[in-house]
Amino acid sequence: MNVPDKQTIEAAHIRITPHIHRTPVMTSYGLDSRVGGSLFFKCENFQKIGAFKARGAMNAVLSLPAEDLIKGVATHSSGNHAQALARAAKIVNTRSYIVMPHTSPEIKKRGVRGFGGEIFECEPTLAARESTLADVVARTGATEIHPFNNYAVIAGQATAAKELFEEVGDLDYLVAPVGGGGLLSGVSLAAFYFSPKTKVIAAEPAGADDTYRSLKSGKIEQSQAASIADGLLTSLGDKTFPIITKYVGEVITVTDTEIVDAMRLIWERMKIIIEPSCAVPVAAILKEHQKFAGKRTGVILSGGNVDLERALKLFTEKNKT
Amino acid sequence: MNVPDKQTIEAAHIRITPHIHRTPVMTSYGLDSRVGGSLFFKCENFQKIGAFKARGAMNAVLSLPAEDLIKGVATHSSGNHAQALARAAKIVNTRSYIVMPHTSPEIKKRGVRGFGGEIFECEPTLAARESTLADVVARTGATEIHPFNNYAVIAGQATAAKELFEEVGDLDYLVAPVGGGGLLSGVSLAAFYFSPKTKVIAAEPAGADDTYRSLKSGKIEQSQAASIADGLLTSLGDKTFPIITKYVGEVITVTDTEIVDAMRLIWERMKIIIEPSCAVPVAAILKEHQKFAGKRTGVILSGGNVDLERALKLFTEKNKT
Repeated sequence: MNVPDKQTIEAAHIRITPHIHRTPVMTSYGLDSRVGGSLFFKCENFQKIGAFKARGAMNAVLSLPAEDLIKGVATHSSGNHAQALARAAKIVNTRSYIVMPHTSPEIKKRGVRGFGGEIFECEPTLAARESTLADVVARTGATEIHPFNNYAVIAGQATAAKELFEEVGDLDYLVAPVGGGGLLSGVSLAAFYFSPKTKVIAAEPAGADDTYRSLKSGKIEQSQAASIADGLLTSLGDKTFPIITKYVGEVITVTDTEIVDAMRLIWERMKIIIEPSCAVPVAAILKEHQKFAGKRTGVILSGGNVDLERALKLFTEKNKT
Repeated sequence: MNVPDKQTIEAAHIRITPHIHRTPVMTSYGLDSRVGGSLFFKCENFQKIGAFKARGAMNAVLSLPAEDLIKGVATHSSGNHAQALARAAKIVNTRSYIVMPHTSPEIKKRGVRGFGGEIFECEPTLAARESTLADVVARTGATEIHPFNNYAVIAGQATAAKELFEEVGDLDYLVAPVGGGGLLSGVSLAAFYFSPKTKVIAAEPAGADDTYRSLKSGKIEQSQAASIADGLLTSLGDKTFPIITKYVGEVITVTDTEIVDAMRLIWERMKIIIEPSCAVPVAAILKEHQKFAGKRTGVILSGGNVDLERALKLFTEKNKT
């Protein structure tokens, strides 16, 4: 498979539409006033399993040839992709094998099991995760579905931006968060095909600014993984890096303090729950607000899966500083 | 003015539509599964000023004769009605005088001032509030707009249910919270006129169950005002009580623990912020879920104005018990 073209993304959208939410686009007078421009929030926090990951996993599973599909799918993930893949497998009535560190919170495991996923616990290191996954794949014949370095996943994530353009028309900017780059690759391809005048901007935590550094150096740099935005700590992959290099114009980095402020602002003003990783594009827009003044800007709100006690701690600690 | 008839509510809707949000109706697979029925959430937490109160205040202000309108409007309120009235007055370019206890949080005062409202501080007793308001009205000639015991306010609140019926069709049940009864009166009239087969159910905190007792005794009983649902602590008025007596079939009461559980469930499952008072109907439905199984039930989510530290503290305390 190659970098998804326009037809591939259109086909992905047709394929997954029966199984995902067409999430609402929200606006906020209060946030528009702060920026002096128009912001359009694509609310993937309202997506199935609470995050855009439902799109990519669904498309990857539905794209498998029949002989692979019946053997099931596998991944290592402790986050939203684990639930998204288990859910997608359940929908097509096949098996899912999810490798998770034994330190993963019980609620995440319950989420995966709720969709019939079979969990394989391992030590909380990348090496253990990869070797356990290799074992599972060898034993079951399941197909590994990588959370972001996979073209079918990328084509699935692209549909979030496609829907946004369909709903609000052309935009000046589209801002999306970047971790491994699956979402960012997808939405930058969607902008290129469906709204070519839109400039795509990546928003990244300063404590995991490997995309910023990678675009500067021209090679994949490793993430420091030091941010509260726990969905954005991974480095780019060999499939996402070239797409981002070609289609993303700029990276804005933000501090954890700016992320918490933006998260709180969205909770209070828009009355919706977003997770720290999801607040990163909002923080980026507030930081560089002059850039967005007088412009029409789309924002992918990527997810809303946050432990409420943890969120309280973030808000409270922030107040003390 | 009399109890609003069908045309009065239709006129109210036409009058306020340019100035309010037509709020979305949300559904949740997870909540439907728990109940075994279909729930339709009318999201007034996304309304202007974060609560349905924007509707009633707007209609009351727009219904004033010109000679009164130019003298301004007044009320005593430390809650959502204060901001709603200040906002409505600003929209028609007249003055608003808001009597608030000097103990009100600074954020509430800032909200009122942000809409150009003039604040008069008083002692935090009902007597002080009423006498200060009487002074202000005598001095300014402003019209008092009561937060709920006012037919124009009731007609405004009715439009929330009217929109819900327009969007989802007939319902078996409609559940709304009750404090002073402005919202409940309005939506029960709307059900009677626009979806007469729908049974309206009131949801009330057990620690302020004056509506439950009033419907039993046949006269207005006083609220104990002992609940975390701080928007529902008032007793009924002489305009709301007769409407509720006639059009509301049943009152379900819920404990504070049930309210916190329901609030948390909505935050986590639906990724939206609702205030404790707004969780009361959800708690009522979960408590009496057998009643709602196999039925189509509308729920008015009344507002989302909650101090985040307070809400998250409620969740944490709940976890300890």
